[in-house]
Amino acid sequence: MTTRQPEFAPSPRLLLGPGPSAVPERVLRAMASPPLGHLDPQYLELMDRLRPLLRELFQSENELTLVMPGTGTSGMEACLLNLLDVGDKAVIGVNGYFGQRMVDIGWRSGAEVIAVERPWGETLDEDAILEAIEDHRPKLVAFVHAETSTGIRQPVEKIARAARDRGVLVVVDCVTSLGGCPVEIDRWGVDAAYSASQKCLGAPSGLAPITLSERAMEAIFSRKTPVRSFYLDLSLLARYWGRERVYHHTASSPLLAALYEALRIVFEEGLEARFERHQRQHEALVAGLGEIGLSLTTPTESRLPMLNPVRVPAGIDEADVRRELLTEHGIEIGAGLGELKGKAWRIGLMGASATDNNVMLVLGALKKSLARRSLRTA
Amino acid sequence: MTTRQPEFAPSPRLLLGPGPSAVPERVLRAMASPPLGHLDPQYLELMDRLRPLLRELFQSENELTLVMPGTGTSGMEACLLNLLDVGDKAVIGVNGYFGQRMVDIGWRSGAEVIAVERPWGETLDEDAILEAIEDHRPKLVAFVHAETSTGIRQPVEKIARAARDRGVLVVVDCVTSLGGCPVEIDRWGVDAAYSASQKCLGAPSGLAPITLSERAMEAIFSRKTPVRSFYLDLSLLARYWGRERVYHHTASSPLLAALYEALRIVFEEGLEARFERHQRQHEALVAGLGEIGLSLTTPTESRLPMLNPVRVPAGIDEADVRRELLTEHGIEIGAGLGELKGKAWRIGLMGASATDNNVMLVLGALKKSLARRSLRTA
Repeated sequence: MTTRQPEFAPSPRLLLGPGPSAVPERVLRAMASPPLGHLDPQYLELMDRLRPLLRELFQSENELTLVMPGTGTSGMEACLLNLLDVGDKAVIGVNGYFGQRMVDIGWRSGAEVIAVERPWGETLDEDAILEAIEDHRPKLVAFVHAETSTGIRQPVEKIARAARDRGVLVVVDCVTSLGGCPVEIDRWGVDAAYSASQKCLGAPSGLAPITLSERAMEAIFSRKTPVRSFYLDLSLLARYWGRERVYHHTASSPLLAALYEALRIVFEEGLEARFERHQRQHEALVAGLGEIGLSLTTPTESRLPMLNPVRVPAGIDEADVRRELLTEHGIEIGAGLGELKGKAWRIGLMGASATDNNVMLVLGALKKSLARRSLRTA
Repeated sequence: MTTRQPEFAPSPRLLLGPGPSAVPERVLRAMASPPLGHLDPQYLELMDRLRPLLRELFQSENELTLVMPGTGTSGMEACLLNLLDVGDKAVIGVNGYFGQRMVDIGWRSGAEVIAVERPWGETLDEDAILEAIEDHRPKLVAFVHAETSTGIRQPVEKIARAARDRGVLVVVDCVTSLGGCPVEIDRWGVDAAYSASQKCLGAPSGLAPITLSERAMEAIFSRKTPVRSFYLDLSLLARYWGRERVYHHTASSPLLAALYEALRIVFEEGLEARFERHQRQHEALVAGLGEIGLSLTTPTESRLPMLNPVRVPAGIDEADVRRELLTEHGIEIGAGLGELKGKAWRIGLMGASATDNNVMLVLGALKKSLARRSLRTA
C-alpha cells in the first residue's frame, strides 16, 4: 500500500531554457479556475473568444484556427497526419531536431518523405528545396520557422511562394516563434502552421494553437484514407470548434482559460512591442555574453531572439554548469540537443521570461560559474 | 485588431455530468503551481512519485504505467495504435459510444476490426465475444469496463481469462471506473488499460493514466511497421518515463502536479472507502429519483455507481430541463449520447462530486423543474 504520500512542493525555478517559459501570475490564477464542462455554454464562449486572438497571432484569416489538445508535437502531428495521405510525397527541410521529427512523423502518415538536409545550425538551402519540389512534385513542403534545437530562424517567403505557385501545400512549424517574432501566415502564403502554449505565449504547456488555409482543408476533405489518428483528426476537431459543437474530447477548460489569459497579456502589450522586447533582450544577452567571453553558435543574420545557443568553452563540462545554475540559483537553461549535445547551452528568453533582470541574472550566474572553474584549473 | 479582450470570469458550476467532475481546492492550487521544465530533476521526481500511485489505482505491478499527455481518448488511441499492427485482427465489443470509438480507432491503426455488437444500455454478450475470438483468432480483444454513454458496467474477468488462454491481448477502457469502483488489472488478466484524470480521480482533464503488461510491451516491440502516431508512441514515452529520460514532449507539470495531488486525496480516503462512497451516493440518488417518479435506464445488476442514466419522462423536453438546471441552479448534468439522445439525462457522481449534498441538490432541482412543467401542462 502506498497510502500517505508527501506533498509535492518544488523549489521555484527561473525558466530560461527552451521552454516552458515563466508564466505570469494572472495566467496561474486562470489555471486554478474550477473546470467547466466541455459543452458548457460558458466554455463554448471561451473557445469563441480565443479564435480571433489566435488569428491575430498567426496574422491569418483562416476559418480553421483552433487549439489542439496536446503539446506542440500534437500540432506538428496533426498537420502532417491530416494533410498527408498514403502514397503522397512530402519534401521536408531538415536542419535540426524538429525538422527530423517532422520526417519521422511524415513516414508514419504513410507518405513518401524527401528530406532535404543541411547541417544543424545553418539555415535551409532554399534552392535545394525548390529543386526537390521541381523534381518530386510533392503534395506538401514542410519546415521549421524557429528551430528550437539550434536557434536558427528560417526565412519562409521564398520557399512558400515557389511552393504555392506549383500547387504545393506549405506547412511551417512556429512552435518557438509565435508571439516572439513576426509570424505572418497569410502574407507568407503558408497553408498550415502550429505552435505551442509554453514558449513565447506565456502559458503552461499542453495546448498547440494551429491554423489551416482553405486549400489545406480541401486537401483533408478529399483524402482517400482516414486520418491515422482520431485524437488529432482535424475534420472532427473542426466540428467541435465550429457551429455543430460535436463532442470530440473532454477539453481541459483550465488550460484553455490560461491560454486565453496569456493571450490577453500578449495583446495588452501589443505584438510589435512584444517582438521588440524579445529582440532587445536578445541583444542585451549577446552583448553581455561577449563581455564574459561567450558567443552564440549561430550566424548573426539567422538568429532567433528567443532561443540563444551559447557555445560551451573548451574544457568546460556543460552539464555541470547547468546543474550549478539550477541548484545554486534556481535558473534553468537548456542543454544542447542532438548534434549540439555537450557543445552548447540554450538560453531561452521567451514571453514573460524575456526581461532585463532575467538577462542580468543568467549572465551573472554564468560568469560566477565559469570564474569558479577557471580558478580551479588555474 | 482585437487588442483589449474582457477577462474570462465564468459562473461556477456544480459538475454532475459525465465528467469533468468537481476538482478539490488542493488540486486547483496544484494546477496554479508555476511550471517546471520537463527534464527538471524535481519534475522527474514528480513522475517517479506518481507511478506507484497509478499502479495501486490500477491494482497492477506493470512496469509500463504512466500518464499520456492528452485526454482519455489519447489513452484509448495509444493502446490501439501501439498494439495493432497493419493487418492484425481486433475483436471489439460495442454496446455504446465509446466501444464505437474503439472500432473507429482500430480501423485507423490499419487492423481488421471485428465488432461484436449489443444494443446500447445492455452488457456485452460474453459468449458472442468468446465465439468471435475462436472464429477470428485476433491479436487483441478490446471493450469498455464503464461505458460512459450508457452507465453500463461490463464484467471483465470471463472475457479476459478466455482471451489470455488463447494468447489474445486484452484491452479495457477504465476511463469512468478508475477510482470509483474496483479495477483490478492484474487479477483480471488485462494487458492494457487506460483512464482519464477528470472523472473519479478528481483532477482537471488533459491526462490519461495508462498501464501495459509485459506481454503488451513485447507485442509493441515486435511490431513490423512503426506506430502511426509519434505523439502517442509508447516505446518513446517509455524511454521518457523510464531511466533514460529521453525527451519526447514538453510535459505540462501543473497538470501532473494536479493529478498527483488528486491521487494523494484518493489514497488519503482509501480506495475501498472511495468505492463505498460512490456506491452509497448512487443508491441515495436512485432512491431519491424513485420518490419523484424517475428511474434509471439500466438494469440493477449492471449499474455503474458514478454514471446514472435517468429516463426522461414522456412529454418532457430533456434539453430544456438541463438548461434550467444549469442557468437557475448552476448544476451541469449530461445529455444522452447517440442512441440515448433525447431519452436520458446522465447524472455523474464522480470523485469529489459524489457527496450527500450534491445528491440532494440535483434531486431538488430536478423535482422543481419537473413540478413546474406538470403545473404548466395541468
